[in-house]
Amino acid sequence: MIRVGLDAMGGDDAPSAQVDGAVLALQELPQDFSITLVGRAAEIESHLARHPGLDRSRLVIVDAPDVIGMAEKPLAAVRKKPQSSLVVGMGLHGAGKLDAFISAGNTGATLAAATLILGLYEGVERASVASLFPTADASVLVLDSGANVDCTTKELVNFARLGTIYARDVLGRPNPKVGLLNVGEEEGKGGAVLRETHLVLKDVPRMTYVGNIEGGDIVVPHAVHGRIDVVVCDGYVGNVVLKFYESMGRLLGQLLQRADPGLLAASPLRPVLRFLDPSQYAGAPLLGVKGITIICHGQSDAAAMCAAVGKAVDAVRVGLCAHIEAELGTLNDSPAGT
Amino acid sequence: MIRVGLDAMGGDDAPSAQVDGAVLALQELPQDFSITLVGRAAEIESHLARHPGLDRSRLVIVDAPDVIGMAEKPLAAVRKKPQSSLVVGMGLHGAGKLDAFISAGNTGATLAAATLILGLYEGVERASVASLFPTADASVLVLDSGANVDCTTKELVNFARLGTIYARDVLGRPNPKVGLLNVGEEEGKGGAVLRETHLVLKDVPRMTYVGNIEGGDIVVPHAVHGRIDVVVCDGYVGNVVLKFYESMGRLLGQLLQRADPGLLAASPLRPVLRFLDPSQYAGAPLLGVKGITIICHGQSDAAAMCAAVGKAVDAVRVGLCAHIEAELGTLNDSPAGT
Repeated sequence: MIRVGLDAMGGDDAPSAQVDGAVLALQELPQDFSITLVGRAAEIESHLARHPGLDRSRLVIVDAPDVIGMAEKPLAAVRKKPQSSLVVGMGLHGAGKLDAFISAGNTGATLAAATLILGLYEGVERASVASLFPTADASVLVLDSGANVDCTTKELVNFARLGTIYARDVLGRPNPKVGLLNVGEEEGKGGAVLRETHLVLKDVPRMTYVGNIEGGDIVVPHAVHGRIDVVVCDGYVGNVVLKFYESMGRLLGQLLQRADPGLLAASPLRPVLRFLDPSQYAGAPLLGVKGITIICHGQSDAAAMCAAVGKAVDAVRVGLCAHIEAELGTLNDSPAGT
Repeated sequence: MIRVGLDAMGGDDAPSAQVDGAVLALQELPQDFSITLVGRAAEIESHLARHPGLDRSRLVIVDAPDVIGMAEKPLAAVRKKPQSSLVVGMGLHGAGKLDAFISAGNTGATLAAATLILGLYEGVERASVASLFPTADASVLVLDSGANVDCTTKELVNFARLGTIYARDVLGRPNPKVGLLNVGEEEGKGGAVLRETHLVLKDVPRMTYVGNIEGGDIVVPHAVHGRIDVVVCDGYVGNVVLKFYESMGRLLGQLLQRADPGLLAASPLRPVLRFLDPSQYAGAPLLGVKGITIICHGQSDAAAMCAAVGKAVDAVRVGLCAHIEAELGTLNDSPAGT
C-alpha cells in the first residue's frame, strides 16, 4: 500500500479543496494507496463530515496545529514552524512513514522543507519544479518552471537528467527527447550558460539530446524531431511560459466571446476549452530531492488535488526515487558528470 | 512624402514576397509615402513585371548586387558586404535619404547594420527588438524579444523608456502601463537584475510602472491594472514567449482537428484562427537606434511585408525619432537616468 501524505492546510481554499480532493482520490483512483491528511485535525474532521458515507479504511489524519501562510518567507517559516502541516508532513515522508507528500501551500516553503528535510541527491545543487505542458499528443515535461530563476550549466544538465528519468519512468517514454530551450537552433545561440550547457548535453551518456529548440517547439511538434519530451530551461523563462500557457484558455474565451458568444457554449469546442484549463494538469513533481514531493497551485480545487494524488502514486509505483538515485550515481561517476 | 526603404533581397521568399508586399502597400495603404526597393535591380524588375498596370510614381529601385544570407555571421557579413541590399539600404537611411528601412533578412545582421550605420541614442547600450503581441483588446509591446539574451538593469530600464515612447506615440496610449516580466508580483521576486530593475523603474519620472507582472498577465488583462501596454524582459524570455505565442494557432488547429474536423472550416472560428496567425502582426520596430528600422520574420509573405510598411510609415508620421531623442536626453539628465 502506497502511503501518500497531503498538506490539508496548504492552498487558497484549504482545507476544503484538500479534504474534498483526498476523498475524490480515494473514491476514483485505483485503490493501492492510502492518504494521510496532515493539518488541524478538528478542521479536517469537520470537512470530512460532509462525506458521511465515506470508507475511511485508507484515510489517516495526523494533527499539526500550525499553518504556514502563502506570503510567509519560505526558509524562515519552515524553521520557525516545526508544528506546521507542511513541516510535520514532510517530516513523516523524510522519516519513511510516507512515500510521497503533496502541498498546494507556499511553493517556496515546500521547496525549502523538501530540501532541508529530505535532502538532495548527490551532485544535485538545487531541486527543480517540473511542470507538465499538455500538447495535442501527450504531455511535455518543462523544467525548471519556477524554483530557480538563475541557473548554472551544472544545474541545467541535472534538470535534463532528472527530466529524462521522470519522462521514462512516469510518462512511459522509452527514449525521452530532451531539448534545450533557446532563442534559436544553431550552435552558439543564447548566453554563455546556454552555449556551455548545449555543449555538455551533447556528451551526456544515455540521453537523447536533440539540441537547442525554440519557444514554438514546446507544445507543437518540432519539424525534425517531432514532439519533445523534456524541455530544459531556467526557472525564469519556464515560469513565464507556464503561466503564459495557462492564460491561453482565458484568451480563447475572450476571442470566442468576441467572434460569437454562442461558440463558448458550443459542445464541439468544450474539449478544446477543457484542454486549455490548467486545473486538468495539477501537480508538478519536485525533482532532485530524495523523495516524492508534488507541488500544486494555491488555487487548486478538489479535482486538481485528486490529480496530484494520482501523480504521486504513479511516481512511487514505478520506483522513481530508486531510479534517480541509481542513475545519478552512475552519471556522476562518468566524465560528463564531473 | 515619407520615404520607406525595403530590403528586397531579405527573407526566405525574397525578392518575390518583398516586391509583392511593396506593391500591396502602394495600392492599399494611405498614399503619403514612397517605397525604395533595394536589391538586385534585374531580379526586382522581373518580379515587378507581374504587376503590369502598376503606377510606379511612388516606387524607386536602388541596385545593390550583393546579398547577406540568413545563416551568415551578422557582424562579419555587414563588414564584408558593403554592396549588399541590407548595408546599401541602411546606408541610405543613415544618410538621410530614406526615413525608414525594413528587412525580413538575417535579423542579427539587420541589428548589426542598424547599430553600426545609424548609431545608438546616448545612454542606450544595445538596440532592442520590440514585438507586438495581440490581445483580445489591443496590442501589447514586448521588449526585448530576441536581440539581447542577457540584459543589465540599465538596458531593461532603457527598454521601459523606449517602449513607453513607442506605445504613446505609435500605439496611441497616452499613459502606457509598463510591467516588468517576473516570476511573481511581490517585491524581491526574480534574480538580482530583475530585483534591481524593479527598484529603479519605480523611480523613473513620467513612466506608469505598474510593477512586476507574471507570464499570465502579458495577453490577458491583469486583475488589478487591466491590459499592460509595455512588457519589459530580457531577450531570452521575450523570444521564447513570442515564438510560443506564435505556435498557439497551430496548437488550436490540432485541437480543433481532434475535437471535430468540421470546426476548422467553421466560419465563426475563422476570426479566432486569423487572430492567432502571426503573419497578421509582422514587423517589429528596432528601438534604440537613431532611425526607424523594422525587422520582419524571414518567412514573411506579401501581406506581412505590407503590414511592416504600414508600421514604418506610422512611426515616421508621428515623429518617433525626435521624441525618443528628446525624452532620452531629459531622462539621462535626471537622477534615475544615471
